[in-house]
Amino acid sequence: MAPASITSRFKQSVTPDALRAYLAEFISTFFYVFAVVGSAMASRKLTSDSATSDPSSLVLVAIANAFALSSTVYMAANVSGGHVNPAVTFGMAVGGHINVSTALFYWVSQMLASVMACLLLKVATVSQDVPIYTIASEMTGFGASMVEGVLSFGLVNVVYAGRSGPLRGIGPVAIGLMAGAMTLAAGPFSGGSMNPALAFGSAVVAGRFKNQAVYWVGPLIGAAVAGLVNDNVVLLVQASVDSDGTTAV
Amino acid sequence: MAPASITSRFKQSVTPDALRAYLAEFISTFFYVFAVVGSAMASRKLTSDSATSDPSSLVLVAIANAFALSSTVYMAANVSGGHVNPAVTFGMAVGGHINVSTALFYWVSQMLASVMACLLLKVATVSQDVPIYTIASEMTGFGASMVEGVLSFGLVNVVYAGRSGPLRGIGPVAIGLMAGAMTLAAGPFSGGSMNPALAFGSAVVAGRFKNQAVYWVGPLIGAAVAGLVNDNVVLLVQASVDSDGTTAV
Amino acid sequence: MAPASITSRFKQSVTPDALRAYLAEFISTFFYVFAVVGSAMASRKLTSDSATSDPSSLVLVAIANAFALSSTVYMAANVSGGHVNPAVTFGMAVGGHINVSTALFYWVSQMLASVMACLLLKVATVSQDVPIYTIASEMTGFGASMVEGVLSFGLVNVVYAGRSGPLRGIGPVAIGLMAGAMTLAAGPFSGGSMNPALAFGSAVVAGRFKNQAVYWVGPLIGAAVAGLVNDNVVLLVQASVDSDGTTAV
Amino acid sequence: MAPASITSRFKQSVTPDALRAYLAEFISTFFYVFAVVGSAMASRKLTSDSATSDPSSLVLVAIANAFALSSTVYMAANVSGGHVNPAVTFGMAVGGHINVSTALFYWVSQMLASVMACLLLKVATVSQDVPIYTIASEMTGFGASMVEGVLSFGLVNVVYAGRSGPLRGIGPVAIGLMAGAMTLAAGPFSGGSMNPALAFGSAVVAGRFKNQAVYWVGPLIGAAVAGLVNDNVVLLVQASVDSDGTTAV
Repeated sequence: MAPASITSRFKQSVTPDALRAYLAEFISTFFYVFAVVGSAMASRKLTSDSATSDPSSLVLVAIANAFALSSTVYMAANVSGGHVNPAVTFGMAVGGHINVSTALFYWVSQMLASVMACLLLKVATVSQDVPIYTIASEMTGFGASMVEGVLSFGLVNVVYAGRSGPLRGIGPVAIGLMAGAMTLAAGPFSGGSMNPALAFGSAVVAGRFKNQAVYWVGPLIGAAVAGLVNDNVVLLVQASVDSDGTTAV
Repeated sequence: MAPASITSRFKQSVTPDALRAYLAEFISTFFYVFAVVGSAMASRKLTSDSATSDPSSLVLVAIANAFALSSTVYMAANVSGGHVNPAVTFGMAVGGHINVSTALFYWVSQMLASVMACLLLKVATVSQDVPIYTIASEMTGFGASMVEGVLSFGLVNVVYAGRSGPLRGIGPVAIGLMAGAMTLAAGPFSGGSMNPALAFGSAVVAGRFKNQAVYWVGPLIGAAVAGLVNDNVVLLVQASVDSDGTTAV
Repeated sequence: MAPASITSRFKQSVTPDALRAYLAEFISTFFYVFAVVGSAMASRKLTSDSATSDPSSLVLVAIANAFALSSTVYMAANVSGGHVNPAVTFGMAVGGHINVSTALFYWVSQMLASVMACLLLKVATVSQDVPIYTIASEMTGFGASMVEGVLSFGLVNVVYAGRSGPLRGIGPVAIGLMAGAMTLAAGPFSGGSMNPALAFGSAVVAGRFKNQAVYWVGPLIGAAVAGLVNDNVVLLVQASVDSDGTTAV
Repeated sequence: MAPASITSRFKQSVTPDALRAYLAEFISTFFYVFAVVGSAMASRKLTSDSATSDPSSLVLVAIANAFALSSTVYMAANVSGGHVNPAVTFGMAVGGHINVSTALFYWVSQMLASVMACLLLKVATVSQDVPIYTIASEMTGFGASMVEGVLSFGLVNVVYAGRSGPLRGIGPVAIGLMAGAMTLAAGPFSGGSMNPALAFGSAVVAGRFKNQAVYWVGPLIGAAVAGLVNDNVVLLVQASVDSDGTTAV
């Protein structure tokens, strides 16, 4: 991407195409957050006693996450690229695939969508408490942030893998399955959010911002590293692979 | 679609191709309703005590919904477009992708299929009660209808996303996963039907029409809004994206 | 398919390509039966009390069925067409897509594979009982057979839908998801086998053939009807759809 | 692949493309092992009593396995071929699709990644015990090894099926679903690892190597047999199928 003045960059961010992309990110993130936070509330409602800690509740939330991310990334893929996650947008901006002012508008759309989804859940459940992401009592914030960062690095790697090549078609499903698998592994420890919007919306509506930094610092760093690695190392190989249609090695 | 007299429109709806499309909608909707309502009956049979409210029952029903919608949309996709849902047909009619009299025949096929599927379940289970969609006791009909409307808006957005482009191939799976995710999030609150045929067939066979309006008003309005938004805003972008093969922004 | 003498038909069935197809059917059916029957045995081992009737056990078996059928159909798709089911082979023979003597060799491969898979399970579990398909105590054999027939009709419809067109790529997954959804709906009532090989192998190794006819008569009739309907009604439409690349109606 | 001197073979293994392939195998295997071992730890944490043997725990671990393998194979597919499993690499080396010294570097990357993933889990869970693969008390090591070998044969067959042809696009998902299905069937009996790296990393971090041979001998033999069968029998057919675009028989 050629260097551009701030004004011209901003102009690129208010074209009709860009505005439609923000709308697509808003709609996709809205339904993704609705599914993830809503399934956690559904699971809590269905568990008679207060202790929600059983394997089938985790399966419920992880499947909702995987299914919702697959379908919402799919929904927005052709219009906005299907980020549905501020960390993914950050990774793409670091890699130079989206300019900074456009990325900021993506972030605003995603944050707003997350808050709206949690508000609808509050209304739909007649003011049941909205659950927020928390870390296990024995973990430190630093440890949780590190785990979230590593998982976000993995998630953004799948996003990059789906940008081109013969396997592009199932990209949205692969992204969703990655998020589901990581939720199953890390859910009871660090929360397994990998998505700052998810933690932000529920915290705003619940009015509690404890550990919020964990779900921003880790994912953003992890996504940035993934953007740097993929644009400088892996994509070069993919390009050479695509040209002759065979796998490397 | 050019304006046409009622007679010529009706003639378009009784061609051999159209008749085969009605058959495809009938078969697909039949198996979809069989899976969703049947899995709820199976879950109830397997739960020893009367309280069916546990997370694994919701997982069972949501997975049945996701798997069945993916495969039945796939089954009918090449013949009828794979609506399997009167709300989707309504959204397509609002968007002008199907003419009104054809849409009415689609509706009749879908309704009839749903009733037949519930009748088969009644026979197969030796007259076990067919469960109907209900809303949580603390919700109002208006609130539930609003939630169902929002979710149907999301579902029809996925249907539109799958109409063209490089990701068309996994469209049926993305539609099914969306339905499954929304069931996991909204099941214990508004029911998570998003499909008037689903609520209609079970109500006819059970003989109880309480809250039936909830599952018609919300989904039809949500689908209509999705049709209007996609045909006037998003599809224009998709067209421009497809022409140069890259993602917008 | 032009009429041919019995000798020449038989010759078509012993070409190297045909022999490789039998091997592919053997391997695929072996792993499908291993997964379905093995998951039922795993579920029984993990349930401490004798009553195995809880929703998470049904989810376990249905997911094993869906995942295994998707991957085994995929495994054999390019070599044998990926039937993995004597009823599918029967439906294809009725539709004229495979000649009768080849179909018989497919059947032998599938039966043999099923028996071998159940024997391996018997060894692997140190002689734990192999579960056989049973119908709910309140059902008649006729009722169960009818249900199995209807479900097999649906399954073979998905197989036909995946034979051509732009959505061909995800065919194996759609077939697997259909089987999983039907298992979730019909499992506790008629068993949800839809596959004579599945019932045959477990019955041979368990030495009990009660209700065996249920799992042959229904599926074979259902598959034959699906073959007739698709070859005479639906495929004509698909052909006309494929030629201009748009959906009918 | 033409015979080559050891020196030239080794040179092929340190090209930039090869180094990027090792990195891709490292990243993919890291996240796969993190998901599988982490989900087992999550399941144990969520089960209040010490007995972790219930169907929903097995569903949790098997879904994590299926989702993670699908997405990590997808992640690495274009760069390294997406093995994510020393047994798959061994099968490919036996089939001549990867030279021996490159395969050794793949192994080192996979082993190292598995150990690192288990170490991160140890840190993330504040020193909770890392579970190792074990065989059921009533099984012999030989029996478990045989079962693991048969399952690995099946898994590598799916890998081979996805190397070319019209269904190549969903290959990574089919591979993941196969692993999930086999885990559901064999998990409580032989462990259902099918992947030496999985057993190796957890054993190193836990410091217990009991039954380690079971998870190496069986899978490597099974994968080697699959490599031999596919390269000498099945691939010939696939080639002839691909050339005319129709299924055999």
